[in-house]
Amino acid sequence: MDRIPILRMGDCLLITIQVDLDDRIALQLQDDLANKIADTHARGVLIDISALEVVDSFIGRTLATIAAMARILAAQTVLVGMQPAVAITLVELGVSLTGIHTALDVEKGMAFLRRTIPDRGTTVPDAHAKE
Amino acid sequence: MDRIPILRMGDCLLITIQVDLDDRIALQLQDDLANKIADTHARGVLIDISALEVVDSFIGRTLATIAAMARILAAQTVLVGMQPAVAITLVELGVSLTGIHTALDVEKGMAFLRRTIPDRGTTVPDAHAKE
Repeated sequence: MDRIPILRMGDCLLITIQVDLDDRIALQLQDDLANKIADTHARGVLIDISALEVVDSFIGRTLATIAAMARILAAQTVLVGMQPAVAITLVELGVSLTGIHTALDVEKGMAFLRRTIPDRGTTVPDAHAKE
Repeated sequence: MDRIPILRMGDCLLITIQVDLDDRIALQLQDDLANKIADTHARGVLIDISALEVVDSFIGRTLATIAAMARILAAQTVLVGMQPAVAITLVELGVSLTGIHTALDVEKGMAFLRRTIPDRGTTVPDAHAKE
């Protein structure tokens, strides 16, 4: 796999990480995302890492860098679906993920983005569950 | 990678295929999706294959089977982001993808699902672009 696809949904970008990130793919994602935010004027970035089972300090820092970069480009980042073991590892590694909001699943993450992104007459995907 | 994650967004399930599907993963996806539709009562399935560069007749048939299965479970399937080369290959292989709607990107696919899924007072993600 060359790169992780970035899907545009309304004002948000959705990234699903399905493979254990190696350094090259992580850096590629960082570049791609910065360009995509600039191109699409996205206001929110949702990163699903539910399939990620292993994380090291480099990946943790890369996620933090991605969020910081998105913030400078005026987009809010939400990290969803983190497995408990990954959370434990990140804390033990001392990676604090400053500036990244987290949510348990994609729906909760989207709901968070809809609440926090200022209304500019644009649309953030409505991901309210039916219940 | 063991399996492809299936994300729930409102009444829809979103699948991003990022790796070239081998037979085992394709069959696993088929099983997982059937169970997920039954569990979540999803009405729409959106499969993004923009990262898929190679396709063979087995994968083509598996996609058709997935759509047929979803239809029986009362969910509509949309395949988005197919690369031109993949479309050419599928036609040359004689895989007709009967019953699968296609769209150029995720936003158009979501818009299609929002139009076609009967309103039950539930929500399909609103993926209208701002323009």
